[in-house]
Amino acid sequence: MPPESPAPPDRKPAIILVEPQMGENIGAAARAMMNFGLTDLRLVQPRGGWPSSKARAMASGANAVIDQARVFDQAEAAVADLQFVYATTARARDLPKPVVGPREAAAELRRRSGAGQATGILFGRERWGLTNEQVALADAVVTFPVNPKFASLNVAQAVLLVAYEWMAAGLEPGALPTRSLLPETDVRPAAKEHLFGLMRHFEAALDPSGYFRTEEMKPTMVQNLRAILQRAGFTRDEIDVLHGVVGALERRRERPDSGRDG
Amino acid sequence: MPPESPAPPDRKPAIILVEPQMGENIGAAARAMMNFGLTDLRLVQPRGGWPSSKARAMASGANAVIDQARVFDQAEAAVADLQFVYATTARARDLPKPVVGPREAAAELRRRSGAGQATGILFGRERWGLTNEQVALADAVVTFPVNPKFASLNVAQAVLLVAYEWMAAGLEPGALPTRSLLPETDVRPAAKEHLFGLMRHFEAALDPSGYFRTEEMKPTMVQNLRAILQRAGFTRDEIDVLHGVVGALERRRERPDSGRDG
Repeated sequence: MPPESPAPPDRKPAIILVEPQMGENIGAAARAMMNFGLTDLRLVQPRGGWPSSKARAMASGANAVIDQARVFDQAEAAVADLQFVYATTARARDLPKPVVGPREAAAELRRRSGAGQATGILFGRERWGLTNEQVALADAVVTFPVNPKFASLNVAQAVLLVAYEWMAAGLEPGALPTRSLLPETDVRPAAKEHLFGLMRHFEAALDPSGYFRTEEMKPTMVQNLRAILQRAGFTRDEIDVLHGVVGALERRRERPDSGRDG
Repeated sequence: MPPESPAPPDRKPAIILVEPQMGENIGAAARAMMNFGLTDLRLVQPRGGWPSSKARAMASGANAVIDQARVFDQAEAAVADLQFVYATTARARDLPKPVVGPREAAAELRRRSGAGQATGILFGRERWGLTNEQVALADAVVTFPVNPKFASLNVAQAVLLVAYEWMAAGLEPGALPTRSLLPETDVRPAAKEHLFGLMRHFEAALDPSGYFRTEEMKPTMVQNLRAILQRAGFTRDEIDVLHGVVGALERRRERPDSGRDG
Protein backbone atom coordinates (compact mmCIF):
# COMPACT_ATOMS: atom_id res chain seq x y z
CA MET A 1 0.00 0.00 0.00
CA PRO A 2 1.25 3.55 -0.67
CA PRO A 3 3.23 5.08 2.18
CA GLU A 4 1.74 7.96 4.12
CA SER A 5 4.94 9.97 3.91
CA PRO A 6 5.15 12.80 1.39
CA ALA A 7 7.85 11.10 -0.68
CA PRO A 8 8.45 12.38 -4.20
CA PRO A 9 5.70 11.19 -6.47
CA ASP A 10 6.25 7.72 -7.82
CA ARG A 11 7.29 7.76 -11.41
CA LYS A 12 6.16 4.60 -13.05
CA PRO A 13 8.37 2.97 -15.66
CA ALA A 14 7.84 3.75 -19.32
CA ILE A 15 7.32 0.82 -21.69
CA ILE A 16 9.23 1.44 -24.93
CA LEU A 17 8.46 -0.73 -27.94
CA VAL A 18 11.12 -0.47 -30.62
CA GLU A 19 9.87 -0.95 -34.18
CA PRO A 20 6.85 -3.06 -33.23
CA GLN A 21 5.54 -4.70 -36.38
CA MET A 22 1.95 -5.47 -35.53
CA GLY A 23 -0.67 -3.13 -34.15
CA GLU A 24 -2.20 -6.12 -32.38
CA ASN A 25 0.91 -6.53 -30.27
CA ILE A 26 0.93 -2.85 -29.36
CA GLY A 27 -2.68 -3.17 -28.26
CA ALA A 28 -2.00 -6.32 -26.25
CA ALA A 29 0.96 -4.59 -24.60
CA ALA A 30 -1.24 -1.60 -23.70
CA ARG A 31 -3.82 -3.90 -22.18
CA ALA A 32 -1.14 -5.68 -20.17
CA MET A 33 0.25 -2.36 -18.94
CA MET A 34 -3.14 -1.04 -17.85
CA ASN A 35 -3.88 -4.24 -15.94
CA PHE A 36 -0.84 -3.60 -13.82
CA GLY A 37 -1.04 0.13 -13.48
CA LEU A 38 1.46 1.29 -16.11
CA THR A 39 0.46 4.03 -18.54
CA ASP A 40 3.52 5.52 -20.24
CA LEU A 41 3.77 3.78 -23.62
CA ARG A 42 6.39 4.91 -26.13
CA LEU A 43 6.71 3.63 -29.68
CA VAL A 44 9.82 3.85 -31.81
CA GLN A 45 8.94 3.71 -35.52
CA PRO A 46 5.89 1.48 -35.32
CA ARG A 47 5.92 -0.42 -38.62
CA GLY A 48 2.20 -0.34 -39.22
CA GLY A 49 1.95 3.43 -38.60
CA TRP A 50 0.27 5.27 -35.79
CA PRO A 51 -2.48 5.59 -34.68
CA SER A 52 -3.54 2.03 -35.33
CA SER A 53 -7.09 0.70 -35.26
CA LYS A 54 -5.77 -2.82 -34.70
CA ALA A 55 -3.87 -1.63 -31.64
CA ARG A 56 -6.98 0.06 -30.29
CA ALA A 57 -9.12 -3.03 -30.83
CA MET A 58 -6.62 -5.31 -29.09
CA ALA A 59 -6.17 -2.86 -26.23
CA SER A 60 -9.65 -3.88 -25.14
CA GLY A 61 -10.47 -0.65 -23.37
CA ALA A 62 -7.00 0.45 -22.36
CA ASN A 63 -7.66 3.62 -24.33
CA ALA A 64 -5.85 5.91 -21.95
CA VAL A 65 -2.62 4.10 -22.71
CA ILE A 66 -3.22 4.13 -26.46
CA ASP A 67 -4.26 7.80 -26.51
CA GLN A 68 -1.22 8.95 -24.55
CA ALA A 69 1.30 6.84 -26.45
CA ARG A 70 4.14 8.87 -27.92
CA VAL A 71 5.98 8.09 -31.12
CA PHE A 72 9.73 8.56 -31.61
CA ASP A 73 12.09 8.23 -34.53
CA GLN A 74 14.90 6.70 -32.56
CA ALA A 75 15.25 4.60 -29.41
CA GLU A 76 17.74 7.15 -28.17
CA ALA A 77 15.12 9.89 -28.25
CA ALA A 78 12.56 7.63 -26.56
CA VAL A 79 14.77 7.16 -23.50
CA ALA A 80 16.21 10.67 -23.45
CA ASP A 81 14.31 11.84 -20.36
CA LEU A 82 14.80 8.64 -18.40
CA GLN A 83 17.35 8.07 -15.67
CA PHE A 84 17.53 4.30 -15.58
CA VAL A 85 16.69 1.94 -18.43
CA TYR A 86 16.51 -1.80 -18.87
CA ALA A 87 16.77 -3.58 -22.21
CA THR A 88 14.95 -6.90 -22.60
CA THR A 89 16.68 -9.63 -24.56
CA ALA A 90 15.87 -13.24 -25.36
CA ARG A 91 19.26 -14.31 -24.09
CA ALA A 92 22.17 -12.74 -22.31
CA ARG A 93 24.72 -11.29 -24.71
CA ASP A 94 28.31 -10.49 -24.42
CA LEU A 95 27.76 -7.01 -23.10
CA PRO A 96 29.33 -5.45 -20.05
CA LYS A 97 26.00 -4.95 -18.31
CA PRO A 98 24.26 -6.59 -15.42
CA VAL A 99 21.73 -9.23 -16.50
CA VAL A 100 18.74 -9.87 -14.24
CA GLY A 101 15.39 -11.65 -14.32
CA PRO A 102 12.10 -9.74 -14.40
CA ARG A 103 11.59 -10.08 -10.65
CA GLU A 104 14.90 -8.47 -9.79
CA ALA A 105 14.32 -5.82 -12.42
CA ALA A 106 10.93 -4.96 -10.96
CA ALA A 107 12.38 -4.60 -7.48
CA GLU A 108 15.05 -2.24 -8.81
CA LEU A 109 12.48 -0.23 -10.76
CA ARG A 110 10.32 0.11 -7.68
CA ARG A 111 13.26 1.35 -5.68
CA ARG A 112 14.25 3.91 -8.26
CA SER A 113 10.69 5.00 -8.93
CA GLY A 114 10.13 5.42 -5.22
CA ALA A 115 13.13 7.72 -5.20
CA GLY A 116 11.60 9.84 -7.94
CA GLN A 117 13.73 8.51 -10.78
CA ALA A 118 12.35 8.25 -14.31
CA THR A 119 12.78 4.68 -15.53
CA GLY A 120 11.89 2.60 -18.57
CA ILE A 121 12.16 -0.78 -20.25
CA LEU A 122 13.06 -1.28 -23.91
CA PHE A 123 11.44 -4.11 -25.86
CA GLY A 124 12.65 -5.08 -29.30
CA ARG A 125 11.01 -6.03 -32.55
CA GLU A 126 8.98 -9.22 -32.63
CA ARG A 127 11.52 -11.18 -34.66
CA TRP A 128 14.92 -9.67 -34.13
CA GLY A 129 14.83 -8.16 -30.70
CA LEU A 130 16.96 -5.15 -29.94
CA THR A 131 20.13 -4.36 -31.83
CA ASN A 132 23.36 -4.21 -29.89
CA GLU A 133 23.28 -0.44 -30.30
CA GLN A 134 19.84 -0.29 -28.73
CA VAL A 135 20.84 -2.59 -25.88
CA ALA A 136 23.80 -0.31 -25.34
CA LEU A 137 21.38 2.51 -24.47
CA ALA A 138 20.32 0.63 -21.36
CA ASP A 139 21.89 0.41 -17.92
CA ALA A 140 21.11 -3.26 -17.49
CA VAL A 141 19.51 -6.20 -19.26
CA VAL A 142 16.41 -8.23 -18.40
CA THR A 143 16.04 -11.79 -19.67
CA PHE A 144 13.21 -14.22 -19.02
CA PRO A 145 13.58 -17.68 -17.47
CA VAL A 146 12.10 -19.48 -20.47
CA ASN A 147 12.39 -23.06 -21.59
CA PRO A 148 15.73 -23.18 -23.43
CA LYS A 149 14.18 -25.54 -25.98
CA PHE A 150 11.35 -23.15 -26.74
CA ALA A 151 12.17 -19.54 -26.06
CA SER A 152 9.52 -17.68 -27.97
CA LEU A 153 7.88 -14.91 -26.00
CA ASN A 154 6.33 -12.27 -28.16
CA VAL A 155 6.71 -8.62 -27.29
CA ALA A 156 3.28 -8.31 -25.67
CA GLN A 157 3.95 -11.36 -23.50
CA ALA A 158 7.28 -9.89 -22.40
CA VAL A 159 5.57 -6.60 -21.52
CA LEU A 160 2.94 -8.51 -19.55
CA LEU A 161 5.54 -10.28 -17.44
CA VAL A 162 7.45 -7.10 -16.65
CA ALA A 163 4.25 -5.20 -15.83
CA TYR A 164 3.03 -8.05 -13.64
CA GLU A 165 6.30 -8.14 -11.74
CA TRP A 166 6.13 -4.38 -11.35
CA MET A 167 2.74 -4.73 -9.68
CA ALA A 168 3.83 -7.70 -7.59
CA ALA A 169 6.96 -5.87 -6.40
CA GLY A 170 4.80 -3.09 -5.03
CA LEU A 171 2.91 -5.46 -2.78
CA GLU A 172 4.15 -6.50 0.61
CA PRO A 173 5.40 -10.08 0.54
CA GLY A 174 2.51 -12.31 1.40
CA ALA A 175 0.14 -9.40 1.10
CA LEU A 176 -1.07 -9.74 -2.44
CA PRO A 177 -4.35 -7.87 -2.78
CA THR A 178 -5.98 -11.21 -3.38
CA ARG A 179 -5.32 -11.84 0.28
CA SER A 180 -7.47 -8.98 1.40
CA LEU A 181 -10.09 -10.16 -1.07
CA LEU A 182 -10.16 -13.48 0.71
CA PRO A 183 -13.80 -14.22 1.14
CA GLU A 184 -14.37 -13.50 4.76
CA THR A 185 -15.97 -16.87 4.89
CA ASP A 186 -14.44 -18.38 7.96
CA VAL A 187 -12.61 -21.57 7.10
CA ARG A 188 -11.16 -22.13 10.53
CA PRO A 189 -11.88 -25.60 11.84
CA ALA A 190 -14.70 -25.72 14.35
CA ALA A 191 -14.02 -26.18 18.03
CA LYS A 192 -13.62 -29.85 18.81
CA GLU A 193 -16.86 -30.02 20.74
CA HIS A 194 -18.76 -29.39 17.53
CA LEU A 195 -16.72 -31.97 15.68
CA PHE A 196 -17.37 -34.53 18.40
CA GLY A 197 -21.09 -33.79 18.18
CA LEU A 198 -21.02 -34.57 14.48
CA MET A 199 -19.12 -37.79 15.10
CA ARG A 200 -21.74 -38.86 17.64
CA HIS A 201 -24.52 -38.00 15.23
CA PHE A 202 -22.95 -40.15 12.50
CA GLU A 203 -22.50 -43.02 14.92
CA ALA A 204 -26.03 -42.84 16.28
CA ALA A 205 -27.42 -42.84 12.76
CA LEU A 206 -25.23 -45.71 11.66
CA ASP A 207 -25.82 -47.92 14.66
CA PRO A 208 -29.29 -49.16 13.67
CA SER A 209 -28.25 -49.48 10.00
CA GLY A 210 -26.03 -52.48 10.48
CA TYR A 211 -22.98 -50.48 9.43
CA PHE A 212 -21.01 -51.63 12.45
CA ARG A 213 -21.11 -55.28 11.57
CA THR A 214 -20.23 -56.75 14.94
CA GLU A 215 -19.58 -55.37 18.37
CA GLU A 216 -15.96 -56.41 17.97
CA MET A 217 -15.52 -54.47 14.78
CA LYS A 218 -17.32 -51.38 15.96
CA PRO A 219 -14.52 -49.65 17.90
CA THR A 220 -12.13 -49.79 14.95
CA MET A 221 -14.79 -48.64 12.51
CA VAL A 222 -15.75 -45.76 14.77
CA GLN A 223 -12.13 -44.78 15.07
CA ASN A 224 -11.65 -44.83 11.30
CA LEU A 225 -14.71 -42.70 10.74
CA ARG A 226 -13.65 -40.26 13.45
CA ALA A 227 -10.22 -39.95 11.90
CA ILE A 228 -11.77 -39.07 8.54
CA LEU A 229 -14.08 -36.44 9.99
CA GLN A 230 -11.25 -35.06 12.08
CA ARG A 231 -8.83 -34.74 9.18
CA ALA A 232 -11.37 -32.93 7.03
CA GLY A 233 -11.04 -29.84 9.22
CA PHE A 234 -14.72 -28.91 8.91
CA THR A 235 -15.81 -25.44 9.92
CA ARG A 236 -18.69 -24.81 12.28
CA ASP A 237 -21.00 -24.00 9.35
CA GLU A 238 -19.98 -27.12 7.49
CA ILE A 239 -20.69 -29.22 10.55
CA ASP A 240 -24.18 -27.74 10.75
CA VAL A 241 -24.81 -28.68 7.13
CA LEU A 242 -23.56 -32.20 7.76
CA HIS A 243 -25.85 -32.55 10.77
CA GLY A 244 -28.68 -31.75 8.39
CA VAL A 245 -27.46 -34.35 5.91
CA VAL A 246 -27.22 -37.09 8.52
CA GLY A 247 -30.55 -36.07 9.99
CA ALA A 248 -32.25 -36.28 6.61
CA LEU A 249 -30.80 -39.72 5.96
CA GLU A 250 -31.91 -40.86 9.42
CA ARG A 251 -35.45 -39.73 8.84
CA ARG A 252 -35.77 -41.89 5.79
CA ARG A 253 -36.64 -44.77 8.07
CA GLU A 254 -39.19 -42.83 10.03
CA ARG A 255 -40.94 -41.59 6.92
CA PRO A 256 -40.45 -44.48 4.61
CA ASP A 257 -42.25 -42.89 1.74
CA SER A 258 -40.30 -39.69 1.69
CA GLY A 259 -42.82 -37.13 0.46
CA ARG A 260 -41.42 -34.84 3.09
CA ASP A 261 -41.02 -31.27 2.04
CA GLY A 262 -40.59 -29.30 5.26
CA MET B 1 5.86 -40.52 6.46
CA PRO B 2 6.78 -39.96 2.84
CA PRO B 3 7.55 -43.25 1.20
CA GLU B 4 11.16 -44.29 0.78
CA SER B 5 10.32 -45.82 -2.55
CA PRO B 6 11.60 -43.98 -5.60
CA ALA B 7 9.68 -40.74 -5.79
CA PRO B 8 7.05 -40.65 -8.51
CA PRO B 9 8.05 -38.56 -11.50
CA ASP B 10 7.16 -34.89 -11.40
CA ARG B 11 3.75 -34.34 -12.86
CA LYS B 12 3.40 -30.93 -14.39
CA PRO B 13 0.11 -29.08 -14.06
CA ALA B 14 -2.52 -29.39 -16.76
CA ILE B 15 -3.87 -26.17 -18.24
CA ILE B 16 -7.63 -26.48 -18.75
CA LEU B 17 -9.39 -23.90 -20.92
CA VAL B 18 -13.14 -23.97 -20.46
CA GLU B 19 -15.14 -22.97 -23.54
CA PRO B 20 -12.41 -20.84 -25.10
CA GLN B 21 -13.98 -18.75 -27.81
CA MET B 22 -11.05 -17.89 -30.03
CA GLY B 23 -8.54 -20.24 -31.56
CA GLU B 24 -6.03 -17.40 -31.36
CA ASN B 25 -6.24 -17.43 -27.59
CA ILE B 26 -5.76 -21.18 -27.46
CA GLY B 27 -2.67 -20.79 -29.61
CA ALA B 28 -1.30 -17.97 -27.49
CA ALA B 29 -1.91 -20.05 -24.37
CA ALA B 30 -0.06 -23.01 -25.91
CA ARG B 31 2.87 -20.77 -26.77
CA ALA B 32 2.94 -19.38 -23.25
CA MET B 33 2.84 -22.92 -21.81
CA MET B 34 5.69 -24.16 -23.99
CA ASN B 35 7.86 -21.20 -23.08
CA PHE B 36 7.63 -22.25 -19.47
CA GLY B 37 7.78 -26.00 -19.87
CA LEU B 38 4.09 -26.95 -19.59
CA THR B 39 2.59 -29.33 -22.15
CA ASP B 40 -0.73 -30.78 -20.91
CA LEU B 41 -3.42 -28.65 -22.55
CA ARG B 42 -7.08 -29.60 -22.12
CA LEU B 43 -9.99 -27.90 -23.85
CA VAL B 44 -13.59 -28.03 -22.72
CA GLN B 45 -15.95 -27.37 -25.62
CA PRO B 46 -13.77 -25.01 -27.63
CA ARG B 47 -16.28 -22.73 -29.37
CA GLY B 48 -14.50 -22.54 -32.68
CA GLY B 49 -14.10 -26.32 -32.95
CA TRP B 50 -10.95 -28.38 -32.80
CA PRO B 51 -8.42 -28.71 -34.35
CA SER B 52 -8.06 -25.03 -35.15
CA SER B 53 -5.78 -23.54 -37.75
CA LYS B 54 -5.90 -20.19 -35.94
CA ALA B 55 -4.71 -21.85 -32.76
CA ARG B 56 -1.85 -23.50 -34.60
CA ALA B 57 -0.79 -20.26 -36.26
CA MET B 58 -0.78 -18.35 -32.96
CA ALA B 59 1.06 -21.17 -31.17
CA SER B 60 4.08 -20.08 -33.14
CA GLY B 61 5.77 -23.45 -33.13
CA ALA B 62 4.40 -24.87 -29.90
CA ASN B 63 3.04 -27.73 -31.99
CA ALA B 64 3.66 -30.40 -29.40
CA VAL B 65 1.20 -28.69 -27.07
CA ILE B 66 -1.40 -28.22 -29.81
CA ASP B 67 -1.04 -31.78 -31.11
CA GLN B 68 -1.43 -33.34 -27.67
CA ALA B 69 -4.35 -31.15 -26.56
CA ARG B 70 -7.36 -33.15 -25.45
CA VAL B 71 -10.96 -32.07 -25.83
CA PHE B 72 -13.68 -32.71 -23.23
CA ASP B 73 -17.42 -32.17 -23.09
CA GLN B 74 -17.49 -31.05 -19.48
CA ALA B 75 -15.09 -29.37 -17.08
CA GLU B 76 -15.83 -32.20 -14.67
CA ALA B 77 -14.43 -34.77 -17.11
CA ALA B 78 -11.39 -32.62 -17.81
CA VAL B 79 -10.32 -32.65 -14.16
CA ALA B 80 -11.43 -36.22 -13.37
CA ASP B 81 -7.92 -37.67 -13.12
CA LEU B 82 -6.46 -34.73 -11.18
CA GLN B 83 -5.90 -34.58 -7.46
CA PHE B 84 -5.57 -30.87 -6.84
CA VAL B 85 -7.13 -28.18 -8.97
CA TYR B 86 -7.08 -24.39 -8.97
CA ALA B 87 -9.76 -22.24 -10.56
CA THR B 88 -8.73 -18.81 -11.84
CA THR B 89 -11.16 -15.95 -11.30
CA ALA B 90 -11.09 -12.24 -11.95
CA ARG B 91 -12.16 -11.55 -8.42
CA ALA B 92 -12.64 -13.48 -5.22
CA ARG B 93 -16.15 -14.76 -4.77
CA ASP B 94 -18.02 -15.79 -1.75
CA LEU B 95 -16.88 -19.38 -1.84
CA PRO B 96 -15.38 -21.25 1.06
CA LYS B 97 -12.10 -21.86 -0.73
CA PRO B 98 -8.64 -20.50 -0.19
CA VAL B 99 -7.81 -17.61 -2.53
CA VAL B 100 -4.18 -17.08 -3.49
CA GLY B 101 -2.10 -15.15 -5.97
CA PRO B 102 -0.30 -16.85 -8.85
CA ARG B 103 2.99 -16.97 -6.97
CA GLU B 104 1.59 -18.87 -4.03
CA ALA B 105 -0.34 -21.11 -6.38
CA ALA B 106 2.81 -21.96 -8.32
CA ALA B 107 4.67 -22.84 -5.14
CA GLU B 108 1.84 -25.12 -4.06
CA LEU B 109 1.68 -26.75 -7.50
CA ARG B 110 5.43 -27.36 -7.45
CA ARG B 111 5.21 -29.00 -4.08
CA ARG B 112 2.31 -31.23 -5.06
CA SER B 113 3.83 -32.10 -8.42
CA GLY B 114 7.06 -33.00 -6.71
CA ALA B 115 5.06 -35.38 -4.53
CA GLY B 116 3.63 -37.07 -7.63
CA GLN B 117 0.19 -35.48 -7.49
CA ALA B 118 -1.72 -34.73 -10.67
CA THR B 119 -2.66 -31.04 -10.67
CA GLY B 120 -4.33 -28.56 -12.95
CA ILE B 121 -5.59 -25.02 -13.36
CA LEU B 122 -9.00 -24.11 -14.78
CA PHE B 123 -9.35 -20.97 -16.91
CA GLY B 124 -12.76 -19.67 -17.91
CA ARG B 125 -14.23 -18.22 -21.06
CA GLU B 126 -12.82 -14.96 -22.33
CA ARG B 127 -15.80 -12.85 -21.29
CA TRP B 128 -17.62 -14.60 -18.50
CA GLY B 129 -14.94 -16.55 -16.68
CA LEU B 130 -15.85 -19.73 -14.90
CA THR B 131 -19.35 -20.42 -13.63
CA ASN B 132 -19.80 -20.99 -9.92
CA GLU B 133 -20.34 -24.67 -10.66
CA GLN B 134 -16.99 -24.82 -12.46
CA VAL B 135 -15.21 -22.97 -9.66
CA ALA B 136 -16.77 -25.45 -7.25
CA LEU B 137 -14.81 -28.23 -8.97
CA ALA B 138 -11.56 -26.73 -7.71
CA ASP B 139 -9.80 -26.97 -4.38
CA ALA B 140 -8.68 -23.37 -4.32
CA VAL B 141 -8.88 -20.16 -6.31
CA VAL B 142 -6.19 -18.10 -8.02
CA THR B 143 -6.76 -14.42 -8.67
CA PHE B 144 -4.35 -11.91 -10.16
CA PRO B 145 -3.15 -8.72 -8.47
CA VAL B 146 -4.49 -6.50 -11.23
CA ASN B 147 -5.34 -2.82 -11.26
CA PRO B 148 -8.82 -2.70 -9.71
CA LYS B 149 -9.76 0.05 -12.16
CA PHE B 150 -8.79 -2.06 -15.16
CA ALA B 151 -8.94 -5.76 -14.55
CA SER B 152 -8.97 -7.19 -18.02
CA LEU B 153 -6.56 -10.05 -18.49
CA ASN B 154 -7.51 -12.31 -21.32
CA VAL B 155 -7.30 -16.04 -20.96
CA ALA B 156 -3.94 -16.36 -22.73
CA GLN B 157 -2.43 -13.64 -20.53
CA ALA B 158 -3.68 -15.42 -17.41
CA VAL B 159 -2.16 -18.70 -18.65
CA LEU B 160 1.13 -16.90 -19.32
CA LEU B 161 1.33 -15.55 -15.77
CA VAL B 162 0.58 -18.91 -14.18
CA ALA B 163 3.07 -20.71 -16.46
CA TYR B 164 5.72 -18.08 -15.76
CA GLU B 165 5.25 -18.41 -12.02
CA TRP B 166 5.42 -22.20 -12.39
CA MET B 167 8.81 -21.85 -14.03
CA ALA B 168 9.99 -19.21 -11.56
CA ALA B 169 8.95 -21.37 -8.60
CA GLY B 170 11.18 -24.13 -9.92
CA LEU B 171 14.13 -21.80 -10.20
CA GLU B 172 13.97 -20.37 -6.73
CA PRO B 173 14.06 -23.10 -4.15
CA GLY B 174 14.41 -20.46 -1.44
CA ALA B 175 11.11 -18.92 -2.44
CA LEU B 176 9.05 -21.94 -1.50
CA PRO B 177 6.63 -21.19 1.29
CA THR B 178 7.49 -22.55 4.70
CA ARG B 179 3.86 -23.24 5.41
CA SER B 180 3.06 -26.80 4.52
CA LEU B 181 -0.46 -27.63 3.51
CA LEU B 182 0.39 -31.29 3.24
CA PRO B 183 0.36 -33.53 6.27
CA GLU B 184 3.31 -35.85 6.70
CA THR B 185 1.38 -39.04 6.12
CA ASP B 186 0.36 -40.15 2.70
CA VAL B 187 -2.96 -38.41 2.51
CA ARG B 188 -2.95 -37.41 -1.09
CA PRO B 189 -6.39 -36.30 -2.24
CA ALA B 190 -8.24 -38.72 -4.46
CA ALA B 191 -8.58 -38.06 -8.15
CA LYS B 192 -11.56 -35.84 -8.80
CA GLU B 193 -13.57 -38.59 -10.45
CA HIS B 194 -13.73 -40.40 -7.11
CA LEU B 195 -14.75 -37.25 -5.30
CA PHE B 196 -17.46 -36.58 -7.87
CA GLY B 197 -18.74 -40.14 -7.38
CA LEU B 198 -19.07 -39.53 -3.66
CA MET B 199 -20.92 -36.26 -4.28
CA ARG B 200 -23.37 -38.07 -6.53
CA HIS B 201 -23.86 -40.80 -3.94
CA PHE B 202 -24.72 -38.24 -1.26
CA GLU B 203 -27.13 -36.49 -3.59
CA ALA B 204 -28.86 -39.68 -4.69
CA ALA B 205 -29.29 -40.74 -1.06
CA LEU B 206 -30.58 -37.33 0.00
CA ASP B 207 -33.00 -36.83 -2.86
CA PRO B 208 -35.77 -39.14 -1.55
CA SER B 209 -35.23 -37.94 2.03
CA GLY B 210 -36.73 -34.51 1.54
CA TYR B 211 -33.38 -32.87 2.27
CA PHE B 212 -33.61 -30.74 -0.85
CA ARG B 213 -36.72 -28.93 0.22
CA THR B 214 -37.79 -27.53 -3.13
CA GLU B 215 -36.53 -27.79 -6.66
CA GLU B 216 -35.54 -24.13 -6.45
CA MET B 217 -33.41 -24.66 -3.39
CA LYS B 218 -31.78 -27.83 -4.60
CA PRO B 219 -29.00 -26.38 -6.81
CA THR B 220 -27.71 -24.15 -4.02
CA MET B 221 -27.91 -26.92 -1.47
CA VAL B 222 -26.08 -29.30 -3.81
CA GLN B 223 -23.40 -26.70 -4.38
CA ASN B 224 -22.94 -26.11 -0.67
CA LEU B 225 -22.62 -29.79 0.00
CA ARG B 226 -20.18 -30.23 -2.87
CA ALA B 227 -18.05 -27.37 -1.59
CA ILE B 228 -17.86 -29.03 1.82
CA LEU B 229 -16.85 -32.40 0.39
CA GLN B 230 -14.40 -30.75 -1.97
CA ARG B 231 -12.72 -28.72 0.72
CA ALA B 232 -12.24 -31.76 2.94
CA GLY B 233 -9.58 -33.14 0.57
CA PHE B 234 -10.59 -36.76 1.13
CA THR B 235 -8.22 -39.53 0.08
CA ARG B 236 -9.33 -42.47 -2.03
CA ASP B 237 -9.60 -44.71 1.08
CA GLU B 238 -11.62 -42.12 2.93
CA ILE B 239 -14.01 -41.83 0.03
CA ASP B 240 -14.51 -45.59 0.06
CA VAL B 241 -15.38 -45.47 3.75
CA LEU B 242 -17.82 -42.62 3.17
CA HIS B 243 -19.52 -44.56 0.36
CA GLY B 244 -20.06 -47.29 2.94
CA VAL B 245 -21.51 -44.79 5.41
CA VAL B 246 -23.94 -43.31 2.91
CA GLY B 247 -24.87 -46.75 1.63
CA ALA B 248 -25.66 -47.95 5.14
CA LEU B 249 -27.81 -44.92 5.84
CA GLU B 250 -29.62 -45.42 2.54
CA ARG B 251 -30.41 -49.01 3.37
CA ARG B 252 -32.19 -48.02 6.55
CA ARG B 253 -35.31 -47.36 4.59
CA GLU B 254 -35.14 -50.69 2.86
CA ARG B 255 -34.81 -52.51 6.19
CA PRO B 256 -37.13 -50.41 8.26
CA ASP B 257 -36.85 -52.37 11.45
CA SER B 258 -33.11 -52.39 11.79
CA GLY B 259 -32.53 -55.40 13.99
CA ARG B 260 -29.72 -56.16 11.66
CA ASP B 261 -26.47 -57.00 13.34
CA GLY B 262 -24.37 -58.52 10.59
